[in-house]
Amino acid sequence: MPTVLFERGAHRCIAFSDLVLGDDGVQANQFLIQNGSQAALLDPGGDLLYTPLWLAITPYVKLQEVTWILASHQDPDIIGAVDRWLTNTPARVACSKLWGRFVPHSVSHFQAGKLGHDRYLLLPDDGGTIPLGEAHIRALPAHFLHSVGNFSFYDMTSGILFSGDVGSSMIARGTAYAPVEDFSAHLPSMEGFHRRYMGSNRITRLWADMVRRLAPRMIVPQHGLPMDERTMPAFLDWLSGLRCGIDLMGPEDYRY
Amino acid sequence: MPTVLFERGAHRCIAFSDLVLGDDGVQANQFLIQNGSQAALLDPGGDLLYTPLWLAITPYVKLQEVTWILASHQDPDIIGAVDRWLTNTPARVACSKLWGRFVPHSVSHFQAGKLGHDRYLLLPDDGGTIPLGEAHIRALPAHFLHSVGNFSFYDMTSGILFSGDVGSSMIARGTAYAPVEDFSAHLPSMEGFHRRYMGSNRITRLWADMVRRLAPRMIVPQHGLPMDERTMPAFLDWLSGLRCGIDLMGPEDYRY
Repeated sequence: MPTVLFERGAHRCIAFSDLVLGDDGVQANQFLIQNGSQAALLDPGGDLLYTPLWLAITPYVKLQEVTWILASHQDPDIIGAVDRWLTNTPARVACSKLWGRFVPHSVSHFQAGKLGHDRYLLLPDDGGTIPLGEAHIRALPAHFLHSVGNFSFYDMTSGILFSGDVGSSMIARGTAYAPVEDFSAHLPSMEGFHRRYMGSNRITRLWADMVRRLAPRMIVPQHGLPMDERTMPAFLDWLSGLRCGIDLMGPEDYRY
Repeated sequence: MPTVLFERGAHRCIAFSDLVLGDDGVQANQFLIQNGSQAALLDPGGDLLYTPLWLAITPYVKLQEVTWILASHQDPDIIGAVDRWLTNTPARVACSKLWGRFVPHSVSHFQAGKLGHDRYLLLPDDGGTIPLGEAHIRALPAHFLHSVGNFSFYDMTSGILFSGDVGSSMIARGTAYAPVEDFSAHLPSMEGFHRRYMGSNRITRLWADMVRRLAPRMIVPQHGLPMDERTMPAFLDWLSGLRCGIDLMGPEDYRY
């Protein structure tokens, strides 16, 4: 079942949280942002989810209205099916310029001619503003969390920060998709993932500081559950103090 | 034209360096290691290279002999076409356990049943030894260079270290595929990539220290040219001192 995260006038944000079946891959959320007759798909994923997501969005949007594919980074669960989305919608792909020549490796030579460079908006490291109908989406730096070229997407109309891998939780199958109520109880589902996949405390702190100033209404990650005003402060405090990634690596980890 | 990097008895290492045509994606090398009637493909790539690589390896190996797909990490130019390689060869995929539930997002639900978990060898962070005929390939930690779960592959027979993104160079189209002769002249083709994509000096140093102890006969990266005993020492010294990635990020880089 899709979840409507926000709806006001011509603007709507919808989460698809249950399209990964069984144990075929890690649970992942995909998002649709609509403004009037334009729509953006966030992190639509690879072949695993192409057909399920297509079917899931059809009650809300025509494929011809998909104006943007927003890719937080280059992973298979983010943008693996870029060739199919580019073929079957008129959308452009917005992603880091670091992945501008890597993501097209998912497109065959046969198709590359018609799905070429003019179909990409390559974002510089400081991000940018992406127009969607009358609305705007900001790409905010989230580099090294985990991908070296990585963005969170802030929908300025709803106040939702689509945070990508940051804030992700590994939830049990069948968990209801609803904002976290108790951060302490939720923390074990986030801890292992953040410790190993996030780059370092230097970066988690920089991102948390930025997000505190931004003060979004909700943080909605690509895996697991959203966090609202009840849990965002505790999450950002935890993230600011987290030792992770490179912080935890030493000579004993690089041996042959 | 393929390049035979090593051949002795039943053991052979071949590089394919020119399968990316024009400007369709970043230049990338794919590798075939054969020992007797078993073969491993290293970082075979996405749909862009599936058919070209298939055609390129057929003079050397039957598809039924491809025993391993070795994936240094999860990127589209590394393992995007995992579904097609799993469908058309009996190979298992060796990759970091960090990507065990992410890489399968490139496989449709329809195929997932027959291309499931038994087709993966998920490597722990300290790597492991992969048998190939009578030979062995060691997966060596290269985490955060750039991927958070990343391996270099050391072929113990040839003494070649297939280093993945580490040591990669962005070379002009048409450059002959041959070991670098002058490291200083080569450095500009490596510098920008390593500065932005590699995680931090802490990690480049740990990797370089490990590789000095290993003392491979050649370092062969996924992009650009190999380095042999003439240039490896200068490369490892440069890498050990490189400030990169997280080292270069500050509050001014994480703003909205």
